[in-house]
Amino acid sequence: MAAPAASSDPVALPQGFSANALHCGLRKDPNHADLGLLLADAARPAAAVFTTNRLVGAHIHVCREHLQQSRGLVRAVLVNARNANCATGEQGIRDARECCAALAERIGCPVEQVLMASTGPIGAPLPKQKILAKLEDLLAGASTGKAHEFARAIMTTDTFPKARTTTFAGTDGTERRATGFSKGAGMIHPNMATMLAFTVADANPADADLAAMCRRIADRSYHRVTIDGDTSPNDTFVVWGGGTIADASTFETAITKLSQDLARLIAKDGEGLTRLITVQVRGAATEAEANHVGRTIGTSPLVKTAVAGLDPNWGRILSAAGRAGVPFDAEKARVWVGDAEVYHKGVPHPEREKAAHEHLVNHVEVVLGVDLGRGNASADIWTCDLTKDYVQINADYRS
Amino acid sequence: MAAPAASSDPVALPQGFSANALHCGLRKDPNHADLGLLLADAARPAAAVFTTNRLVGAHIHVCREHLQQSRGLVRAVLVNARNANCATGEQGIRDARECCAALAERIGCPVEQVLMASTGPIGAPLPKQKILAKLEDLLAGASTGKAHEFARAIMTTDTFPKARTTTFAGTDGTERRATGFSKGAGMIHPNMATMLAFTVADANPADADLAAMCRRIADRSYHRVTIDGDTSPNDTFVVWGGGTIADASTFETAITKLSQDLARLIAKDGEGLTRLITVQVRGAATEAEANHVGRTIGTSPLVKTAVAGLDPNWGRILSAAGRAGVPFDAEKARVWVGDAEVYHKGVPHPEREKAAHEHLVNHVEVVLGVDLGRGNASADIWTCDLTKDYVQINADYRS
Repeated sequence: MAAPAASSDPVALPQGFSANALHCGLRKDPNHADLGLLLADAARPAAAVFTTNRLVGAHIHVCREHLQQSRGLVRAVLVNARNANCATGEQGIRDARECCAALAERIGCPVEQVLMASTGPIGAPLPKQKILAKLEDLLAGASTGKAHEFARAIMTTDTFPKARTTTFAGTDGTERRATGFSKGAGMIHPNMATMLAFTVADANPADADLAAMCRRIADRSYHRVTIDGDTSPNDTFVVWGGGTIADASTFETAITKLSQDLARLIAKDGEGLTRLITVQVRGAATEAEANHVGRTIGTSPLVKTAVAGLDPNWGRILSAAGRAGVPFDAEKARVWVGDAEVYHKGVPHPEREKAAHEHLVNHVEVVLGVDLGRGNASADIWTCDLTKDYVQINADYRS
Repeated sequence: MAAPAASSDPVALPQGFSANALHCGLRKDPNHADLGLLLADAARPAAAVFTTNRLVGAHIHVCREHLQQSRGLVRAVLVNARNANCATGEQGIRDARECCAALAERIGCPVEQVLMASTGPIGAPLPKQKILAKLEDLLAGASTGKAHEFARAIMTTDTFPKARTTTFAGTDGTERRATGFSKGAGMIHPNMATMLAFTVADANPADADLAAMCRRIADRSYHRVTIDGDTSPNDTFVVWGGGTIADASTFETAITKLSQDLARLIAKDGEGLTRLITVQVRGAATEAEANHVGRTIGTSPLVKTAVAGLDPNWGRILSAAGRAGVPFDAEKARVWVGDAEVYHKGVPHPEREKAAHEHLVNHVEVVLGVDLGRGNASADIWTCDLTKDYVQINADYRS
């Protein structure tokens, strides 16, 4: 369903960035790149947010180390698909370091200015020789026109590459550009549930704590996607820019919007889905509370199977909100499906269920909403329905 | 798969208790009882644990009120199926009170000595006239031999009735009896995900806080079952006994074991399941921590679909444990499937995956285990696999 929407926008890299992708032998299909590179013409400021999982991919150890040593200056990001380099112990960390070091040597920059990200099955040693053997070619072929190739290389079983470009004003009045890439989280394939996202920009926010901003952006975009509630050990989001300066608020607004678009594309590519669901939570006391209630609704199998069955089952929505741990009063709450308010402050409205059902039937992107009647904070969460195809895909024995 | 195992034990009521069940018109099938009664020959001490959901069924408001007013003395419990009397506002609470009052009048006891429990779809008014019209017959037909009939009446789409009897020694050396009933939680049917459980016994624990004990028993039995993570607004567990006295520890051990057996029956009856899964968590710092990690694994769609696919996917188990929020070190953790330890302190053992796969193939009751390497606390959690049939059942439009 999503392919046409995803391929509509032209994607171009910001000034000073190039990219490349090629096949190094990790994937079986020789026509599908499995190694990607993002390269800056000089070391530029970056910040990252990583998984909260206690099991952490080797690349995350190395990225944290490098970002600390380089004080957040990054020259290149190397990404491989088809191997998570996770639960691979000390050897895995040494392997990731070695890949970064080899690339740094060829670029001629300090090793700590190179980051790496891996996605794929957990628990198999990284076939680093295949990667090392291709670094020369990868670097030599990097160009400003290969954003799309990079987006394709980092896919796992995503059905379409995810990349978007946006523009915003720099402080000098020139048009600045930011380009984001993402790949799907969860509902993807056995052991390949990682969410990776990279944003490059040709400006930096003035007088801003980039690390704190990166976290706020993630909280309002990628952290608002929930497919199956499972967090990958390899989840990584990088914001990386520079060259010129933009107003911090302008920069944050632009990157947040870009990241939200890319986050929605992940939900839209959930394996087996038939509906993209936006869960609207309103009337919460705080944004964190709204987010938490939304995530609880968005991970409820009973809510997600109901949407798959085109059932405007508001009882399941209210019940899922009820178990989120937020002390709202069901007698003051409201629930809607599309524009149909099927539950209003203690009173069900069965006469509106037909309209709610038709909303689910007639739209690929559907809305489920709840107002907690506690305050003025809100959050939107993106998820998808839970179908038999999801189970089929995720039950298939690893091959 | 579970029917033969479930119908093997003879179930009898403890001294002083009788039961009945009949059809009052809530179910379409006139041959399936939808109204059940448990009756004591005198008011006896009881304690209850209710749902933590913020949305709360009307019967829970009334039960809490009555238990407080009666200081925990209960004469009768009335249960209806096919209507949750939930999200029905003040009218729902009035309806539940009226049913209790009408039954109390016929018994000749104070209204607060009658409890009620409802299970079924959310949001429809309780057809109380159908219930009121049958209370006379329900009371008149109560007998000591109708435990099985009661268990059948409270089913929703459970595939078999769930009842068990156990015995333990009273302080006077006589054999005492406890009988438990349960009905399924989650994975059952749209809006009928309630877990109800009632335990009656012909002894009471000496010098014990029955309410605190009831909570401990629930925490170690029914709260260890997780089907799909959705908590019903109507979940109710009652422990009710008396007549003679038993040692508190003897009583608690017996009722905990009985409740664990009944809790496992709920997991065993998960809709669409092919495998009953016991998640063993070991090496935790506290029992609460073990329980939390076990529940996170037991609700992971990726873990549950892997079992459906007979895939001993230890990476998903470790990854689910990792996102539970407990700060364990993956380098000290172990993961097993059946007897095969497929991950040992940072090192995967692919050569053991064949044995792990065979465990999943050859057993209907399978074991997934993780040792966190942090301490000596443990917990077992019961769940079931996630299959295409589950999705089918829960996606069907309410009919």
